[in-house]
Amino acid sequence: MNPDLRRERAAATFNPELITHILDGSPENTRRRREIENLIMNDPDFQHEDYNFLTRSQRYEVAVKKSANMVKKMREFGIADPDEIMWFKKLQLVNFVEPVGLNYSMFIPTLLNQGTTAQQEKWLHSSKGLQIIGTYAQTEMGHGTHLRGLETTATYDPKTQEFILNSPTVTSIKWWPGGLGKTSNHAIVLAQLFTQGKCYGLHAFIVPIREIGTHKPLPGITVGDIGPKFGYEEMDNGYLKMDNYRIPRENMLMKYAQVKPDGTYVKPLSDKLTYGTMVFVRSFLVGEAARSLSKACTIAIRYSAVRHQSEIKPGEPEPQILDFQTQQYKLFPLLATAYAFQFVGAYMKETYHRINEGIGQGDLSELPELHALTAGLKAFTTWTANAAIEECRMACGGHGYSHSSGIPNIYVTFTPACTFEGENTVMMLQTARFLMKSYDHVHSGELVCGMVSYLNDLPSQRIQPQQVAVWPTVVDINSPDSLTEAYKLRAARLVDIAAKNLQNEMSHRKSKEIAWNLTSVDLVRASEAHCHYVVVKLFSEKLHKIQDKSIQAVLRNLCLLYCLYGISQKAGDFLQGNIMTGTQITQVNQRIMELLTIIRPNAVALVDAFDFKDMTLGSVLGRYDGNVYENLFEWAKKSPLNQTEVHESYHKHLKPLQSKL
Amino acid sequence: MNPDLRRERAAATFNPELITHILDGSPENTRRRREIENLIMNDPDFQHEDYNFLTRSQRYEVAVKKSANMVKKMREFGIADPDEIMWFKKLQLVNFVEPVGLNYSMFIPTLLNQGTTAQQEKWLHSSKGLQIIGTYAQTEMGHGTHLRGLETTATYDPKTQEFILNSPTVTSIKWWPGGLGKTSNHAIVLAQLFTQGKCYGLHAFIVPIREIGTHKPLPGITVGDIGPKFGYEEMDNGYLKMDNYRIPRENMLMKYAQVKPDGTYVKPLSDKLTYGTMVFVRSFLVGEAARSLSKACTIAIRYSAVRHQSEIKPGEPEPQILDFQTQQYKLFPLLATAYAFQFVGAYMKETYHRINEGIGQGDLSELPELHALTAGLKAFTTWTANAAIEECRMACGGHGYSHSSGIPNIYVTFTPACTFEGENTVMMLQTARFLMKSYDHVHSGELVCGMVSYLNDLPSQRIQPQQVAVWPTVVDINSPDSLTEAYKLRAARLVDIAAKNLQNEMSHRKSKEIAWNLTSVDLVRASEAHCHYVVVKLFSEKLHKIQDKSIQAVLRNLCLLYCLYGISQKAGDFLQGNIMTGTQITQVNQRIMELLTIIRPNAVALVDAFDFKDMTLGSVLGRYDGNVYENLFEWAKKSPLNQTEVHESYHKHLKPLQSKL
Repeated sequence: MNPDLRRERAAATFNPELITHILDGSPENTRRRREIENLIMNDPDFQHEDYNFLTRSQRYEVAVKKSANMVKKMREFGIADPDEIMWFKKLQLVNFVEPVGLNYSMFIPTLLNQGTTAQQEKWLHSSKGLQIIGTYAQTEMGHGTHLRGLETTATYDPKTQEFILNSPTVTSIKWWPGGLGKTSNHAIVLAQLFTQGKCYGLHAFIVPIREIGTHKPLPGITVGDIGPKFGYEEMDNGYLKMDNYRIPRENMLMKYAQVKPDGTYVKPLSDKLTYGTMVFVRSFLVGEAARSLSKACTIAIRYSAVRHQSEIKPGEPEPQILDFQTQQYKLFPLLATAYAFQFVGAYMKETYHRINEGIGQGDLSELPELHALTAGLKAFTTWTANAAIEECRMACGGHGYSHSSGIPNIYVTFTPACTFEGENTVMMLQTARFLMKSYDHVHSGELVCGMVSYLNDLPSQRIQPQQVAVWPTVVDINSPDSLTEAYKLRAARLVDIAAKNLQNEMSHRKSKEIAWNLTSVDLVRASEAHCHYVVVKLFSEKLHKIQDKSIQAVLRNLCLLYCLYGISQKAGDFLQGNIMTGTQITQVNQRIMELLTIIRPNAVALVDAFDFKDMTLGSVLGRYDGNVYENLFEWAKKSPLNQTEVHESYHKHLKPLQSKL
Repeated sequence: MNPDLRRERAAATFNPELITHILDGSPENTRRRREIENLIMNDPDFQHEDYNFLTRSQRYEVAVKKSANMVKKMREFGIADPDEIMWFKKLQLVNFVEPVGLNYSMFIPTLLNQGTTAQQEKWLHSSKGLQIIGTYAQTEMGHGTHLRGLETTATYDPKTQEFILNSPTVTSIKWWPGGLGKTSNHAIVLAQLFTQGKCYGLHAFIVPIREIGTHKPLPGITVGDIGPKFGYEEMDNGYLKMDNYRIPRENMLMKYAQVKPDGTYVKPLSDKLTYGTMVFVRSFLVGEAARSLSKACTIAIRYSAVRHQSEIKPGEPEPQILDFQTQQYKLFPLLATAYAFQFVGAYMKETYHRINEGIGQGDLSELPELHALTAGLKAFTTWTANAAIEECRMACGGHGYSHSSGIPNIYVTFTPACTFEGENTVMMLQTARFLMKSYDHVHSGELVCGMVSYLNDLPSQRIQPQQVAVWPTVVDINSPDSLTEAYKLRAARLVDIAAKNLQNEMSHRKSKEIAWNLTSVDLVRASEAHCHYVVVKLFSEKLHKIQDKSIQAVLRNLCLLYCLYGISQKAGDFLQGNIMTGTQITQVNQRIMELLTIIRPNAVALVDAFDFKDMTLGSVLGRYDGNVYENLFEWAKKSPLNQTEVHESYHKHLKPLQSKL
C-alpha cells in the first residue's frame, strides 16, 4: 500500500467500518453486499475488456454480453431482492449501462402496474424469460417533459378491432428510449388514443417492433440508434417511427382505462396512481446523486493524499496536495455534501416504501407532499452532485481529464439525471406549486404539516417581505439544529417573497399563468431554499440517531461544514433576511477554515467508509492501495493508438508532404 | 429558414453585422475572415467524415490527414498572418485539435525564443518543412504546474560532448505532450541540467525521438499514447521515457544559458524573458473562453427559439422555450458573459502586443502586472465559461446530451483550459501575490498604478475590515460605471481582508509560507473579486467607444445584466461590505427580470452577431436555418450501431439465453 495512504488510515480518529454499516443500513446488509460483490469479483465470466479502449460498437457488444450474463448469474446466485439486484448491478456495471436494463426497470413494472391480469399472463412470463425484450417509448424527438404534447397516435379501428399506430410528423418520432436502437423486440408505446372520432389523451400500448427469432424490424416499423452521445455509449438509445402499424385491441394496457371492442372508451377511476413510478424513480435518483458524488470524492481525495506537488515551505519535500487549504476547501464541502445526500437518499427510500404501503391500503394523503418533495430533491441533489463531480475531476489536475481517473465516466453517466425523468427546472417549479398551495392554505387559516409546517409560523400578512425573518433568533454556528433553524427562516422568507411577487403579478396581469411565468425565477429560488432546508434538517436529525461517540463527532463536523458552507455561498439570503449579521458571516467563514483542518486527518477514512471496490470506481487514480503511477503507465499501454502500427498515418499523410515542401 | 428564427431576426432592434465588425475589430477584418472561411467551405479537400461516428484510431487518422492538408493549403492560399491562421484553423478544426499543432505553436516558437542563430539555422527550416515534426515535452506524470519539481535529468558528459538524458523514476516519465504519442519525431524536452557535478535547474533540449524516414522510435526512447481522455480524441497526447539517451551538446537551446564544451555552465543574463510565451498563451485562453462560450450560447439560444414545449397558457400552442422566464434567466446572463469575455479577450490581445513591443525595446516595467492579470483572468474566464457551457448544454434538455447538439464536444475540448497552462487555483494565487505586493506598496506609502490603483484609496490602517467600504457611495443600478465602482469597492474590501488575515496568521505562526497557505482561500476570493472588477470595468469602458446608438443600447443592456447578475450571485459580499443595502439587492433582482424581457427580442440576433458558421459549431441543434428535427433524423442514421448488421449481438448473446430460460 502507498505509504501516504497507510499513514492517513492509521491517523483516523474513527473506524470507517462503523460508518459503512450506517450507510448500508446495518452490519448484516454490509456483510451480504460484500458477499455478492465477492461472487462477482471471483467469477471469471465477469472479467472483460476495459470499455475505455473499445469502439462504440465493441462497447455495445460487450454490454449486451454482460447484460445476458447478468440475467443468467442472478438466477444462478438466487439474487432477487431489489437491493441485492442493485448491489449486484452497481458493481458489475462500473458506471455503465445495460441495453436490456429497461426490460426489467420499465417494461415489466409498467406491465404490472397498468396491465390487466390477462395481459400479465400473456406477456409477463415471456418478458421475464427474455423471449420478449421490452423497452418503454415515451419521449419523442419534439416532446419531453410536457407529456400532453406527445404526437404519436393510436386510432382504434372497430372493424378489425385493432389500433393503428402512427408517427404523423418528424417531431413525433420516438427518441431516446434505452435498448430501442438494436436490443428490444417490443416496446410499451405512449400514444394519444383516438376512438369514435375523439381523442382521449395518452395511453400505453404493447407494440412488437422486431420479429422474434430473426430480430428483424417488422413491416411498418422504422427503428434504429439515435447516434453518439456524451456518455451511455454502451446503450442503444433508439428511435421508432410507425406507419399505419396495426396491433390488436388487447395490446392496449387496460387495467385502468379501456376501449371496448365496439370502440367505446371507458374512463379510469383514478389517475393518481401513475404517480407511483415517477416518485419511485426520482427518489432513486437522489440516492444516485449521493453514490455518484461519493465515488468522485473517493477518487479525488485518495489521489490528493497520494499526489505530491508544489511547496508550502521552500526547500522541504513537496507536500501532499491534500494539505493545501484551497484543495481542502474544494473537496471537503463536497465530501460533506456526499454524506448529506447519502442520508437524504436513505430517507427518500424509506419514505417511499412507507407511503407506498399506505397507498396499498388506500391512503393517498401523503402522496402530494412526497411527490413535491421528490421532484425538488431530485433537482436539488442532481444539480449539486453534477457540478460537484466536475469539481472533483478538476481537483485532480490534468490527470482528472484522462479516462484513467474514472471521473469523466462518472460524470457523463450521471449528468443526464439533471434533464431526464423530469427536467430539473420543471421539477423545481412542481415543488414550488406545492409550496404556493401550502402557503395559500396557511393564508386562509388552515395549518399545513410535514416539511412545510414552518409556513404556519409566517407572519406574512403583517409585515414586508424583507422583514419576514425578524423573528427573534440567535444562530449558534456550532449547532446543526440552530443552523437548521436558520435555513428554515431562509426558506420561509423566500417562499413568502415568491408568493407575494406572484400575487403582485396576478394583480397586474390578466392571467394566472402569465403571472406564474413572470415569477418563476423567484419560485425556483424558493424551492431551492426549501430543499436546502430539508437536506440540512435530515442531516442534523441523523446525528441524533448515531450512538457511537467517535462516529458522531466526525459526522457532526461534516454536517457543520455542510451547513456553514451553504451559508457562506448564499450569504446574501441570510444577510438580507436579517437571519445573520455580517459579523456572523465572517465567523462562519473562519469556522469553515477551522473545520477543514479538523476534518483533514479523517478525510481518507471518510471516503474509505463508502466502501467502493476498485472495480466499481473504474479508476486508476482512486485505487484503494494508492498505487497510482505504475498503474497509469500500464493502463496507457493499452491505448488503441498503441496497438496499431505506428507509421501508417505518418507514411500516408505526413511523409508525402515532407518531400513536397 | 425556420419561421421562428425568421421572425426572431426580423424583430431585432439592431443590425447584427455591426456587432460582428466590432467583434472582428473592423469591417475589413470581417471581410477577410469570411473570404478565408469561404475558401475552406468550397474546397472539396476539406470535406470529411463527421468525427462523432468514428473510432478513436479513425479520428486520429482523419486528424493527421487534416493537419497535413492544412499545412499544404495555408501555403497555397498564402495565409501567414497569425490571426488569419487562427480563422483558418478554427473553422477547419470545429472544436477539434490537430496532432501536428504543437510543431507550430510550441516547437518552432521555443526554438525562435531560446535557440541561438546557429540552432535556428539548423532546425528551423526542417521543422517548417515538417521533416522535423516537433512537440514540447515539459509536464511529467508526477509533476505539472510546479516546474521545479520536474525529475528528468540531462547530465553533461565532457568526454563525448553529449548530454545523457534520463527518466529516473516512473513519475518522471513525460506525460501529456500533444502529438508525442505517434506523430512527432522530435521533442523539446525540459530537464534538470547537471554539469560538473552540479544541478543548474531546468533547461530545454532538442531531442530526436523517432527516426526520420522510418518514423521508428530511436534506441533508448520509449514513447507512446497516454490513452483515452474526456476529449481530445484526435490528439495523440503521449508519454516519453528516456534511458541513458545521448544527444550532442549543440542540442541544448543556448540563447540564454550555455554549457561550454568542457562542461562550464554560463548563466543567462535575465530569466524574465521566458515569461513571454506563458503570458501569451494565457491571454489567448481568455479569448478561447469567450469563443467557446459564444458557441455554446449560439446553439442553446437558437435551439430555444426553435423548440416549442410545455405551456404558459393552457389550450394555447406550445410556446418557444425562450419565452420561459427560467430559460431566459439561464441563458441571457451567459450571453452577457460571452460578450464580456469577448471584450476582455480583445483587450488582453491588444495589451499583450503593446507590452511585447515595449519588451522588444527593453521596457519590462508593465510585465509583472500583465503577468498577474493574465494568470487571474485566465482562471476567472475559463472557470466561468466552463460551468456556463454545461449550463447551455443542459438548457437544451435531453438533446443537449446528444453529440448532435455539438455542446459536449465544445465542453470536453474547452475544459482542459481550467487545469492546463497553469492550474486555475495556482493562477489565482499568483494574482493574489501581486495584489498583496501592491497592497504592501500602498501600506508603505508608495502609490500603485494600473488595474490595482484602487488600493491607493484604501483607508485600511484606520478601520476594521468589515467597515472598509463605508466610503460614501450611492450605487446607481442603471449605470455600468456606477456598478463598476461597486465592484471596485468589493475587490478593495476582499483584498484588504485577505491582507489583514495574512498579517494576522503571520503574527501567530513562524513561517510566512504556512501563513500564506492558511490564508489561501481568502486570497483566491480576493483575486476573483479583482478579476470580476476588471471584467466589469472593461465591458463598461467598451460601451463608451461604441458610436452606433442602436448597438450601444443593446450592449448596454447586456453589460447591465452582466453586472447585476454578478451582484445578485455574490450579494453577500455587497451587503457585508455595506456597498449596497438589502433594498437595493431586491431592486437588483427586479431589474434583472426586466432586462430579461428587454433582451428577449434581440437574443437570436445577438448570437447571430458572433457569426459562427454551421461548420464551426458542428451542431445540428444550433444550425443557422433552424432546420433541427429533420437533420437530427438524418444525422442519427449515420450512427455506427446502424451500420452493422442488427442481429449479430442478439444472435450471439441474447438468443441462446432465451432458449435456456
